[in-house]
Amino acid sequence: MANFKHESAGQIMETTYITVPGHFIVDNAIAYFRKHAKNKENLHYIYVTDDYSRLCGVLSVRELVIAEKDSRIQDIMTKDVVYAPSDMDQEELAMMFEKEDLLSVPIVNERFQMIGVVHVDDILDVVKHEATEDFLKMAPVSPLGEGLKDASVSLLYRKRITWLVLLVFMNVFSGAGIAHFEDVIENNIALVFFLPLLVDSGGNAGSQASTLMIRAMALGDVKIKDWLKLFTKEISISFLLGITMAIAVSIVGFVRGGAEIAVVVSLTMTLVVMVGSLIGMSLPFIFNKLKMDPATASAPLITSVADIVGVLIYFSIASWYLGL
Amino acid sequence: MANFKHESAGQIMETTYITVPGHFIVDNAIAYFRKHAKNKENLHYIYVTDDYSRLCGVLSVRELVIAEKDSRIQDIMTKDVVYAPSDMDQEELAMMFEKEDLLSVPIVNERFQMIGVVHVDDILDVVKHEATEDFLKMAPVSPLGEGLKDASVSLLYRKRITWLVLLVFMNVFSGAGIAHFEDVIENNIALVFFLPLLVDSGGNAGSQASTLMIRAMALGDVKIKDWLKLFTKEISISFLLGITMAIAVSIVGFVRGGAEIAVVVSLTMTLVVMVGSLIGMSLPFIFNKLKMDPATASAPLITSVADIVGVLIYFSIASWYLGL
Repeated sequence: MANFKHESAGQIMETTYITVPGHFIVDNAIAYFRKHAKNKENLHYIYVTDDYSRLCGVLSVRELVIAEKDSRIQDIMTKDVVYAPSDMDQEELAMMFEKEDLLSVPIVNERFQMIGVVHVDDILDVVKHEATEDFLKMAPVSPLGEGLKDASVSLLYRKRITWLVLLVFMNVFSGAGIAHFEDVIENNIALVFFLPLLVDSGGNAGSQASTLMIRAMALGDVKIKDWLKLFTKEISISFLLGITMAIAVSIVGFVRGGAEIAVVVSLTMTLVVMVGSLIGMSLPFIFNKLKMDPATASAPLITSVADIVGVLIYFSIASWYLGL
Repeated sequence: MANFKHESAGQIMETTYITVPGHFIVDNAIAYFRKHAKNKENLHYIYVTDDYSRLCGVLSVRELVIAEKDSRIQDIMTKDVVYAPSDMDQEELAMMFEKEDLLSVPIVNERFQMIGVVHVDDILDVVKHEATEDFLKMAPVSPLGEGLKDASVSLLYRKRITWLVLLVFMNVFSGAGIAHFEDVIENNIALVFFLPLLVDSGGNAGSQASTLMIRAMALGDVKIKDWLKLFTKEISISFLLGITMAIAVSIVGFVRGGAEIAVVVSLTMTLVVMVGSLIGMSLPFIFNKLKMDPATASAPLITSVADIVGVLIYFSIASWYLGL
């Protein structure tokens, strides 16, 4: 259906459905249904349209069967029909299905004429497909468009290489940060021991925070206006996480480098975890604001950003506290 | 429904459904349906059971309406009913719904008696819920059991801290690896510049590979027996990725440290990306084999493992090639 927008309701709608005029009586409608419903599966609703094919009601086959035989359809139909325009995004349509527990949704054009119907089994595919796309974005891998087993080496290479090379160039900044503190490192080479541990912790806490936001946004649970409230909450959470991890790392620091190193790594850990978490939870909102997919804030991207920040925090604290 | 296993079909089934005996004629069945189907939504199928309540057939309300009035139900029903036992895992049940495009599945007990029905709208919730759990595992965050907005600071702290502390202790090994090569670093401090860039690249390529596997396993697209075939494919893919990234990093290496450093970082990059990818794609299979969730192979876990391996590869190559 080339006429419909990519990932719109129009692309997955079926055009097999039954409509009757509202003035029909139940017996006529049943006769009409018996005539037209043969060999058509997935027919659980009858839609009611006016003389201009505009949608004006719906009733289930169950309601048709249990109705009095001489009732008029327009008197027993549900007038408040849940419908969707053909250009509605499939993801939005899926949320509608979930919220209202629907089996089928009639699709209308801009003149409110009924042109198709979307069934819940196709929505199930949409939900799976969207979740898969979001998963791969977190990797980050561009959507494959086919199953992993059938995907060729060349396709998988192309879907993975862009992000990998971009991240290489981002990580050059961490390297530059380290180079900036070369003197500090040369004066106290033991500091390098704690480098992966500290910068990774910031990245890990940040990945947790960003993944929580990305998923909650995809489910419609969190909106852009919720940022400040969640940011404030993240300050408390990440402070508690940072302190706990600082205690864990201070033991390693003390054993390995003595009391001074223990203070430096504990202080760094608390700060790095807090800053990493706050960046991690904020990036999905920023991408959303820039009209980009919040899932762009993937774990590896957060890790790279947290690395840069972590290197700067660590060696700044070390050179200040140790007077290097 | 405390009697049913956690996340089993029995927990989400509804007990509102209509059964008729097979010897009924269509007219009787319609009369019976009219009497019992009032105020019951989601009734699109009529199930046929024998004298012992055992499931023996199904027909849709549509089929009932279009059938000849004097046919016997047992002659027009579908005998090959898709059903599920009450202890079937909800995720497995969801796959069945998708594969067969079903709206409802009758649930039977161990004596094959019908005891309920699961509708597709509840399956939609299952699919979303499972995807959310898998997302959080990737973070890694333990399942919250409630929406992010309502989750308390203390709950979020508890769901995040375990993995963070575990990863801190894993990262101690990277630090130990670095400490082991302290002499190499002291002799050529410029090597530290490339450390985050090289080890992160291994982690990033590994995260991509593991995420692709975890998702494909969750969708039932990839099984444990596919490991060798996918491993062989990953060798080719990761070699191509590694070479491309080695070219990118060799430029940085040359500008920053000259020809020798360029060789060391290019060689390291190729190896680190290949080893990271192969570990990343294999870990989900290993966790599966150990009866653990493949999603345990989260990006941060892969990053930590790749860090350790990356540090060892990098400084081994450097000390060998530079003769340090």
